[in-house]
Amino acid sequence: MTIEQVLAGDVRTAARLMRDLDDRKPSALDALKALFPHTGKAYLVGITGNPGAGKSTVVDALIAHYRAAGEKVGVVCVDPTSPFSGGAILGDRIRMQRHALDPGVFIRSLATRGHLGGLSRSTFDVAHVLDAMGFERVLIETVGVGQDEVDVMKAAHTTVVVTVPGLGDDIQAIKSGLLEVADVLVVNKSDREGADRTERDLLHMLDLRASGERKEVEIVRTIATKGTSAGSGIAELAAAVEAHRAKVWQGPAAADRATARAQAHLGELVRALLADRATKAMSARGGLTEIARSIADHTADPWTVAEQLVGSL
Amino acid sequence: MTIEQVLAGDVRTAARLMRDLDDRKPSALDALKALFPHTGKAYLVGITGNPGAGKSTVVDALIAHYRAAGEKVGVVCVDPTSPFSGGAILGDRIRMQRHALDPGVFIRSLATRGHLGGLSRSTFDVAHVLDAMGFERVLIETVGVGQDEVDVMKAAHTTVVVTVPGLGDDIQAIKSGLLEVADVLVVNKSDREGADRTERDLLHMLDLRASGERKEVEIVRTIATKGTSAGSGIAELAAAVEAHRAKVWQGPAAADRATARAQAHLGELVRALLADRATKAMSARGGLTEIARSIADHTADPWTVAEQLVGSL
Repeated sequence: MTIEQVLAGDVRTAARLMRDLDDRKPSALDALKALFPHTGKAYLVGITGNPGAGKSTVVDALIAHYRAAGEKVGVVCVDPTSPFSGGAILGDRIRMQRHALDPGVFIRSLATRGHLGGLSRSTFDVAHVLDAMGFERVLIETVGVGQDEVDVMKAAHTTVVVTVPGLGDDIQAIKSGLLEVADVLVVNKSDREGADRTERDLLHMLDLRASGERKEVEIVRTIATKGTSAGSGIAELAAAVEAHRAKVWQGPAAADRATARAQAHLGELVRALLADRATKAMSARGGLTEIARSIADHTADPWTVAEQLVGSL
Repeated sequence: MTIEQVLAGDVRTAARLMRDLDDRKPSALDALKALFPHTGKAYLVGITGNPGAGKSTVVDALIAHYRAAGEKVGVVCVDPTSPFSGGAILGDRIRMQRHALDPGVFIRSLATRGHLGGLSRSTFDVAHVLDAMGFERVLIETVGVGQDEVDVMKAAHTTVVVTVPGLGDDIQAIKSGLLEVADVLVVNKSDREGADRTERDLLHMLDLRASGERKEVEIVRTIATKGTSAGSGIAELAAAVEAHRAKVWQGPAAADRATARAQAHLGELVRALLADRATKAMSARGGLTEIARSIADHTADPWTVAEQLVGSL
C-alpha cells in the first residue's frame, strides 16, 4: 500500500488500511502517521441521539444534501452496542445499496471490539483516513446512548443530537443525557404530535444544565426522508451546523478549541494503549485463572490483587 | 467507621462508606477489603434493556416481590448517561419516596464520573457493601444501552433484559444488542399490540446469535405496575431468575463460572487503576497543553506522542 494511493482517494487501498488499523497492524499505524500531515481539511459532524429518533434517516438526508452541494462525504457509523458481528454489517449493507454507485460517498462501520477506549480511538483513525482521502465532510453516526457515544463525539467539530416527540417522560429524556454534548438539537419526525412540547422540554433542559453557563444551542425541526435532501428541515439543519462552525471554529477561540480536541484524542490514545498493555499482561499470566479462583473462594480480595498486578507492570 | 457497623447493617455507616468509595478514600478501600471475607451471600440480578421499556417499573415490582417473600433488597441504580448531576438523584428521590419507610430496602444510585471502567468498578464495590450488610438480593438496574451496561452486567449472577412491543424495527432491536448478555428476557407492557411479534423476533434473534451455540433463554411476559408485586408476570419473572440460578450457579460448572466472574472483576479493576495512573500522569504534565497544541498544528502526530507518553510512565 502506498500513502499516495490513499491521498489520491483510492477506495480499495483506504478500505484495506482501515481493516489493518482494526487489526492493529504496525504498518497501518505507520501509514496513519505518514498521512497525518495531510489531514485537517475535513469538517466532522457527529450525529447521535435516542434510539428510534431516526438518526440514520437524518444522516442519509444529510449525505444527499452535501452531495447535492458538491461535497465528498465520508461516513463513520459507530455501533458500540452490537455484540452481534452481523449488526453493523447488516445496517451497512442497507445503506451501501443506496450509495453504492456514488464514488463521492464512503461509508465505514465500526462495531465494538470489547476493549476500553477502542471505539473513540477507531473513530479518530477512520476520520483521519477519510480526511486524507479528500472527503471534506465526514459524518459520524452513533447508535445508542451511553458514555461510548459521548466519547466518540469528542472527534466531531459539531455535534448534532437527534430526538423525536413522544419518547417517554421528562426523566427518560434527561437520562438520555446527550444534551450536554449537543451543539445543534434536532426534533425529527416533527409532524408527529407532541413536537411543540418536545421543543419546550429541550429548551427547559438547556436552562437546567449543570454547568451553569447557558450554551447557545439551535433547535431545528426536521422530517427526514431516506436518500433525499428534500426532507423538510434538512437545509436548515445544515445551515445550523455551518452557523456553529463559523461561531466556534473560525473565531479567535478556535485555536484553543483545536488544542482541547487534540488533547481529548491524546487522552483516548494513552488510555487505550494502557488498556492494551493490561490485557496483554494478564493474558501473559494465563488470564490469571489461579488468582481469580482464589478471589472466587474469598481467600484473596480483588482490590489488593489488582494493586499488586498494576504495581508489577 | 467500624466494619462491625456495616456488618450489622447500619445504613448511615454504609452510605458514608459508599460515598467515601466514590471519592476513592484509601480508608474506604481498606474497609472494603476487610468486608470482603464476609461477602458472597448475596444473589445479584441485573436488569437492563431498551430505554422506555419500563425497567424501573419492573425493578419496583421485583422489590415488592422479594420484600413480600421476606428478603432484604439492595438496589444499585447505574446511570452512565447522566452528565447532569441531577439525573440520577432525581430518579433516586422518586424511588426513595416509595421505599423510604422500609428498612429492608436500600437504594444507591451511581452516575458516571467520566473515567473509563469506573461504573463497573463502582457497581462491584457497592454490591459488595450491600452483600456485607446482609442484603440477600441485590438488583442492579442500568439505564441506556451501551458498552457500559454490558460491562456493568458482569457483576450480576443473572441478567434480565427488558424489552417492550413497538420499539422500532428489527434492525433497531438488533442494535440494542443487549441480547448477548441476557439470561432471561422480559416482554414488558405485554398487553400492548405487537407482543406476539416481539416475542417471535426475540426467538428469531436468539437463533441468530453470532456465538453459534443456542443459549437457553426464558422469555417472560410482564405488565409491571409500580410498587406492587401483583404486576402480571412478576412472579413468573422471579421464578425464571431462580431457574437460571439453579441451572448455572448451583451445578458442577458453578465454580468455573465464579472464577470467570472474579476474573472479569479483576480485569475491570486493573484497567481502572491504569486509567487513573494515565490521568494522573497527564495532569502532572499540565494536561499536556503544549503537546496538544503541536498536534493541533499538525507538527506532531498524536499516535507517536501517545506511544512516547506511555513509554515514559
